[in-house]
Amino acid sequence: MTDQDDFCSAAENLLGPRGFTTDPDLVLPWLTDWRGRYHGAALALASPANTDEVSRLMKLCGKHGIAVVPQGGNSGMSGGATPDASGNAVVLSLRRMNRIVELDPIGRKVTCEAGVVLQALHEAAAAEELRFPLTLGGKGSATIGGLISTNAGGTQVLRHGTMRAQVLGLEAVMADGAILDTLVPLKKDNRGFDLKQMLIGSEGTLGIVTGATLRLLPASGGRVVAWVGLGSLTAARELLLRCEAQSPDTLEGFEVLPRHCLTAVLDHLSNARSPLEQEHEWNVLIEWVSAPGAQEAVREQAEEILTSALDDGLVGDAALAENETQAEAMWLLRDSISVAERALGPAMQHDISVPVAKMADFVEQTVPEVETAFPGTRALAFGHLGDGNVHFHVLAPTGAIAGQWEDTDGKTVSRFVHDRVTEVGGSISAEHGIGQMKRDELARLGDPVALALMRSVKLALDPANLLNPGKLVPDVDPMPRKPV
Amino acid sequence: MTDQDDFCSAAENLLGPRGFTTDPDLVLPWLTDWRGRYHGAALALASPANTDEVSRLMKLCGKHGIAVVPQGGNSGMSGGATPDASGNAVVLSLRRMNRIVELDPIGRKVTCEAGVVLQALHEAAAAEELRFPLTLGGKGSATIGGLISTNAGGTQVLRHGTMRAQVLGLEAVMADGAILDTLVPLKKDNRGFDLKQMLIGSEGTLGIVTGATLRLLPASGGRVVAWVGLGSLTAARELLLRCEAQSPDTLEGFEVLPRHCLTAVLDHLSNARSPLEQEHEWNVLIEWVSAPGAQEAVREQAEEILTSALDDGLVGDAALAENETQAEAMWLLRDSISVAERALGPAMQHDISVPVAKMADFVEQTVPEVETAFPGTRALAFGHLGDGNVHFHVLAPTGAIAGQWEDTDGKTVSRFVHDRVTEVGGSISAEHGIGQMKRDELARLGDPVALALMRSVKLALDPANLLNPGKLVPDVDPMPRKPV
Repeated sequence: MTDQDDFCSAAENLLGPRGFTTDPDLVLPWLTDWRGRYHGAALALASPANTDEVSRLMKLCGKHGIAVVPQGGNSGMSGGATPDASGNAVVLSLRRMNRIVELDPIGRKVTCEAGVVLQALHEAAAAEELRFPLTLGGKGSATIGGLISTNAGGTQVLRHGTMRAQVLGLEAVMADGAILDTLVPLKKDNRGFDLKQMLIGSEGTLGIVTGATLRLLPASGGRVVAWVGLGSLTAARELLLRCEAQSPDTLEGFEVLPRHCLTAVLDHLSNARSPLEQEHEWNVLIEWVSAPGAQEAVREQAEEILTSALDDGLVGDAALAENETQAEAMWLLRDSISVAERALGPAMQHDISVPVAKMADFVEQTVPEVETAFPGTRALAFGHLGDGNVHFHVLAPTGAIAGQWEDTDGKTVSRFVHDRVTEVGGSISAEHGIGQMKRDELARLGDPVALALMRSVKLALDPANLLNPGKLVPDVDPMPRKPV
Repeated sequence: MTDQDDFCSAAENLLGPRGFTTDPDLVLPWLTDWRGRYHGAALALASPANTDEVSRLMKLCGKHGIAVVPQGGNSGMSGGATPDASGNAVVLSLRRMNRIVELDPIGRKVTCEAGVVLQALHEAAAAEELRFPLTLGGKGSATIGGLISTNAGGTQVLRHGTMRAQVLGLEAVMADGAILDTLVPLKKDNRGFDLKQMLIGSEGTLGIVTGATLRLLPASGGRVVAWVGLGSLTAARELLLRCEAQSPDTLEGFEVLPRHCLTAVLDHLSNARSPLEQEHEWNVLIEWVSAPGAQEAVREQAEEILTSALDDGLVGDAALAENETQAEAMWLLRDSISVAERALGPAMQHDISVPVAKMADFVEQTVPEVETAFPGTRALAFGHLGDGNVHFHVLAPTGAIAGQWEDTDGKTVSRFVHDRVTEVGGSISAEHGIGQMKRDELARLGDPVALALMRSVKLALDPANLLNPGKLVPDVDPMPRKPV
């Protein structure tokens, strides 16, 4: 028997038929990312039922030199959960570990396993009149473990921060199978390096997140949602500054969509319509969230801000959602961009951030630059203006072949966009992570000091490079493996 | 010449006479911590003028195998900035690097060098109608670099978090002299491991923090400060829950002091008097901070909470500060505890946290346990009840000899207290860090998995163990040094 056969036999014994399979039909769905951009192969699919099984599996992997690709909801944007083509790795799915272990309404925290889906967490919190203050388009599939491993952002970062700000403690299995347990619900703890911070955002390359304790907030008194049409991103930025100044304690979301994005979404969703009668160059979706009992005051404040912006000519038109159904409909437009845009053919997605004050200029200069440099392409930017983070997408020229353009001209386009971002001190990954998609770009444009430190930490914690190899950290040279 | 002589000569050439001295009189003041608990020796005192000099000094240190003890305001609580007795290390003072580099009022952030004193930062922010939301008793000496390296807490953590939550970016010099620069003012950046998080709270063992970009908040509309007398810590916890429920967006501080602490402070401060006429077993200092224009509403809310607590018999007496002078006077009582208590003779300080809900029971059980187990001692707990973090101090019996009791019976007392804390899932260092004071206790009681990970990271980033050796990380075996 080969080492791989030995491993599979031992892993099957360990995890049982529900927890381990090499059946190609069962493995196949998890070898491609949801965008269909990356395709890999795998030796097997492991689906442990608990942390102890993950730990024992990692020990087996270490013994046999088998690499592991952790996977949550498989809805990542950078190919971080898709194995490479070698077929030598095991996909380690956390989906079976989906228990909410304890929800503490007085301490306002929840401990759950890594496979809990974001929407399920939202519902569990709501049942206790609490809320979990992070959401995003993929909430129906994204898991807590994946959200932590990618330090996910979403549409409420403006007020509540990224996933990092929600994590009070976590549990992870390290490369040698050791279990790091920091699920301790302490508000303050300075016993040395904050190891959980290293794992958050490390995309499964330093350890496998198996559980977390997360903060919860009191349920809100309700939200006020507005859809605004205006002429430029500079005007949107001015509106953002007004909202921040006049409603600092209630502003939760400030999203921008160019005209073209809204059109694509309306074409894609059969029953949707635009909240405004006319088309505008830019649309802004704003959400304010009130404390209990204060919804009327928040609504009045929103009306005041928008009325004064209309009077000043800053804004072309604006609509306030009259009820939750309308609010949901507005958000559905925003949350459907990725899906709608995928239907338009090949595109390069750039998840970029620049200093907030520079974003309007950056987009208004870079869009025409890209379209001029690459004739036939269409560039559009949408997303979290309030965080200085937009998704800068470049659609391929008509006739470009999906799966081919991305690997040829598309790469040239990405380098062009990333160069511009780097010139203004921005980030080539604001919230989607590096995965396999941007690893080489990180190697090309990243700070050499930071890259060297990342390599040192990676090899210190995973000397054989078994944890999600090929993702995130460029140029890892593992220690030679000791013979079994 | 010895290696040390070679080093001193090269360092003097590099830094000049203002930046490097071996004069024992000039070095002496920095060899003892402010509590007078730890005394060390040093080869020299280095005071670089900028980050480049720190980097070049570290390269020299690496070449000659000279250890470095970084020091900010020398007001730490765990001996983390005091060198050991060998006299082989250089004290690296960041005090000359005290420039506020840029304060951005619109982006609400400030970039400054590590040696900026906290109070100076408060004043710079206030001049722009902004505030920096972290403060503590040592604000007149504590530096930004020290606050970051120890992940300092203080009296506003309840609402605004520890130092970690304030750091948007930082600059640090690593063991090999490389400069890690993450001063980028981006709100979102997922380009790999968040390296700055490793440095925050690492007490100078992984790198030397030389600068930071910190968040600022809009200036408040003012504060409402109350002094409350009540009968038990359980009553204080009940009052805290009421404040959190009824004033969730304005409650910033909730500090407790037992009767004995207040007496010690009043004895120590010549002009101070108690805000309440009678003595109470426990005192609570509460601070609410209002948004601009909302001070009256916040004051009314505070009055309502306290009146209802008085009516219910939960509280014995309460006083609201009538003006800023009275508010300052109340805070002075709180901030003087450490200094006043030092005058009472030898004591063991335990900076502990337990889950917030368990704190009242923990203190009320452990105080008599300690006093029974160690006759003649007096135990008292004060501090940040709202964070589940109290300073649990045990005063030596009358007649105990300072500097001797702490190293003998005092150590037994500390082990006793730390055992109790560990039994209830608490932390032996909530906010003061480990330093040299608690390193052996961390080795004894810490999670072996976490300790092994800390060692791996430490040796990956500082293989020769030159950065603050002997602090924080137990049992570091450095790589053998290559000959020069």
